[in-house]
Amino acid sequence: MPSDEVIGICRRARAAAAVTRELNTQPKDAVLLRLAEAMDASRERLTSANAADLAAARSGGLSPALIDRLTLTDARISGMVRAIRAVASLPDPVGQVVRGGTRPNGLLIEQVREPLGVVAVVYEARPNVTADVAALCLKSGNAAVLRGSSAAAATNGAIADLIGEVLAGQDEVPADAVQLIRDNSRDAVLQLLTAEEYVDLLVPRGGPGLIETVREHATVPVVIDGDGNCHVYVDASADPAMATSVIVNAKTSRPGVCNAAETLLVHEAIAGAWLPGALDELRKLGVTIRGDERVRAIWPEAEPATEADWATEYLDLILAVRVVASLDEALAHIARWGTRNSEAVIAQDIAVARRFARAVDSGSVFVNCSTRFSDGGEFGYGLEIGISTQKLHARGPMGLEALTCVKNVTWGTGQVRV
Amino acid sequence: MPSDEVIGICRRARAAAAVTRELNTQPKDAVLLRLAEAMDASRERLTSANAADLAAARSGGLSPALIDRLTLTDARISGMVRAIRAVASLPDPVGQVVRGGTRPNGLLIEQVREPLGVVAVVYEARPNVTADVAALCLKSGNAAVLRGSSAAAATNGAIADLIGEVLAGQDEVPADAVQLIRDNSRDAVLQLLTAEEYVDLLVPRGGPGLIETVREHATVPVVIDGDGNCHVYVDASADPAMATSVIVNAKTSRPGVCNAAETLLVHEAIAGAWLPGALDELRKLGVTIRGDERVRAIWPEAEPATEADWATEYLDLILAVRVVASLDEALAHIARWGTRNSEAVIAQDIAVARRFARAVDSGSVFVNCSTRFSDGGEFGYGLEIGISTQKLHARGPMGLEALTCVKNVTWGTGQVRV
Repeated sequence: MPSDEVIGICRRARAAAAVTRELNTQPKDAVLLRLAEAMDASRERLTSANAADLAAARSGGLSPALIDRLTLTDARISGMVRAIRAVASLPDPVGQVVRGGTRPNGLLIEQVREPLGVVAVVYEARPNVTADVAALCLKSGNAAVLRGSSAAAATNGAIADLIGEVLAGQDEVPADAVQLIRDNSRDAVLQLLTAEEYVDLLVPRGGPGLIETVREHATVPVVIDGDGNCHVYVDASADPAMATSVIVNAKTSRPGVCNAAETLLVHEAIAGAWLPGALDELRKLGVTIRGDERVRAIWPEAEPATEADWATEYLDLILAVRVVASLDEALAHIARWGTRNSEAVIAQDIAVARRFARAVDSGSVFVNCSTRFSDGGEFGYGLEIGISTQKLHARGPMGLEALTCVKNVTWGTGQVRV
Repeated sequence: MPSDEVIGICRRARAAAAVTRELNTQPKDAVLLRLAEAMDASRERLTSANAADLAAARSGGLSPALIDRLTLTDARISGMVRAIRAVASLPDPVGQVVRGGTRPNGLLIEQVREPLGVVAVVYEARPNVTADVAALCLKSGNAAVLRGSSAAAATNGAIADLIGEVLAGQDEVPADAVQLIRDNSRDAVLQLLTAEEYVDLLVPRGGPGLIETVREHATVPVVIDGDGNCHVYVDASADPAMATSVIVNAKTSRPGVCNAAETLLVHEAIAGAWLPGALDELRKLGVTIRGDERVRAIWPEAEPATEADWATEYLDLILAVRVVASLDEALAHIARWGTRNSEAVIAQDIAVARRFARAVDSGSVFVNCSTRFSDGGEFGYGLEIGISTQKLHARGPMGLEALTCVKNVTWGTGQVRV
């Protein structure tokens, strides 16, 4: 039987959101700076809570990779403190006038950004997400409902307690503006996913299992951070050195993330001259190459690629490579196999670059630079909530703005509609 | 067993969308003007198709109101022709740079509007929607998949045939850019609602039954045009004549639409002096008044209001009226009973007006003017797709922009991420 905890938290969040939506930037930033200070001064408390999670994780046999993500080192606490201060220094999206104008009848219509209301985030492992999301929601005037993973329960609880104490120590931002769901059951997540009356936006941050649960069960509005089967297309007009540098960076700088390249498409006119050197360099960096017939004719060391390779987001040091006869063939390949996350073109021919930028159906397109720039920090958004692979509401890296919606405010002097 | 028609149409729409997304404004406008001309010249063909629908409707016992909505008069054909020309004259949202800037590493990042891709619209009765939606989708570079009601099958078919002929008569806009689903089964709608691979946005235009079906079954992205339980709050500082004029307009100018007022909230300091005259005038116009105890103490002719009245969107000449002790009480009432569509305040006190505009959680807020202005035409958007009562993607009246999404285009000179 589900506990009452989730709905109670959601109700209090809705009430808090009615207050936070009207807050000016100053009290929000003041709370963020106090939180950064409190966190900086509570390192021992946080690491000792974390030690309990780590002990349980070790005795539960969690993988070393997961234990690493769970671990709160002194440096990681400093990272959280820095992130909270960074959010405080960002411009407030609330109250931004997106557009406006006066109609022939004298009505002044302004489209103004305002908080969404209640933002729920369900996330896995890394406890810094608790602090990051709390900071982003506070700054954007939303009430946050957080649900971390059970493996990080003690750590997340300690961070949430600290936030609670900071909020209790002032009276402008309501105490319920940030709440953590401590019920670690799956039922609690399902209740949150269907709390339509209370949740204005839910963002899942986690692996494919979590995303699948959200896709299947959520009835609240959701923005999903999906797959990244990203391509780099090297045109006939590409600068060969730039092409090598970009594909090396896009594939090897951090292979496990969604903006890493998974498939390289090469125009046939440049393949013979450029491909062997580039693939040699990738191989030296430990990358396994899977190529189609034309690639293997040029560079026989490549393993044979199958259709499954075009479809796979390896998240590993593996690269699928295909030779194409034209820009159109590259575009068709991306339309067929891409996941609308991030796609890059390397070309000196302006017509090719412009056409690629316009024709590719993807949240982010990179011309003569690495797909790895698909990131809120690189885009100048400060912290990011995630990278949206959907088209509605937000597309690509999501910053504070993605936590707001617009309101149409019409100023009249007694006008009625005829 | 579901036919293959729907998926076949969706597939062709996806292929057409790959072409329409790259079209410049000129060929799109040229097709719209040819369509307007062709429609103007095909009045007899359209009205004779419509006569078949009308005959079936009469023998099927459809209500006179539905038959009226179904009827294609000469004036209504002129209205469609005008609407298509109006869409041609609107600015093209595609290619609009929403924001942009250069990062410290020299990357120029532009956020650019582009078509969503495949837009599906499911609608009821009025055949002009076929032409309106086709025009809006063509203009915004999307491929349209239309599904009208069976009652209008012959008329919608004739309009779609005409569009098909105009598209066949040129070679820039693909013939499959506008397609009508002629399978009138419920299964066809359900197939469309779940065609996740093909549909980028589905907009339902119709009554509560259709909206409910969409809410329950749609797995494709949807923007919903929901209820409008709209309030007018008359503050203590209101200009009494303006308050009367606005509530009369908001309630009586077109009671059956979602931006009509349903509840009047009056500050107690003005209620005694203003309410009797205002309610007398509303009664003269045929409006039934349902008031709380304090209203009935001032104006005994009012029927007693119950909680159900605060919750009801009458869409009729009925008005619920309540006296409130403060702006906060009015805001709390709207937060409890409003549907986040359109809310109005009448106040000369700037602090009250500004507070109301900021605090109300609604797509549109009207200060000293009628809720009836919540309309794409009045907002200057030309034709509207609907009025979104959700917060994500679009909020309030939706014009051409709501049929686009943004893409992040990053222009580099070989940058890689360090």
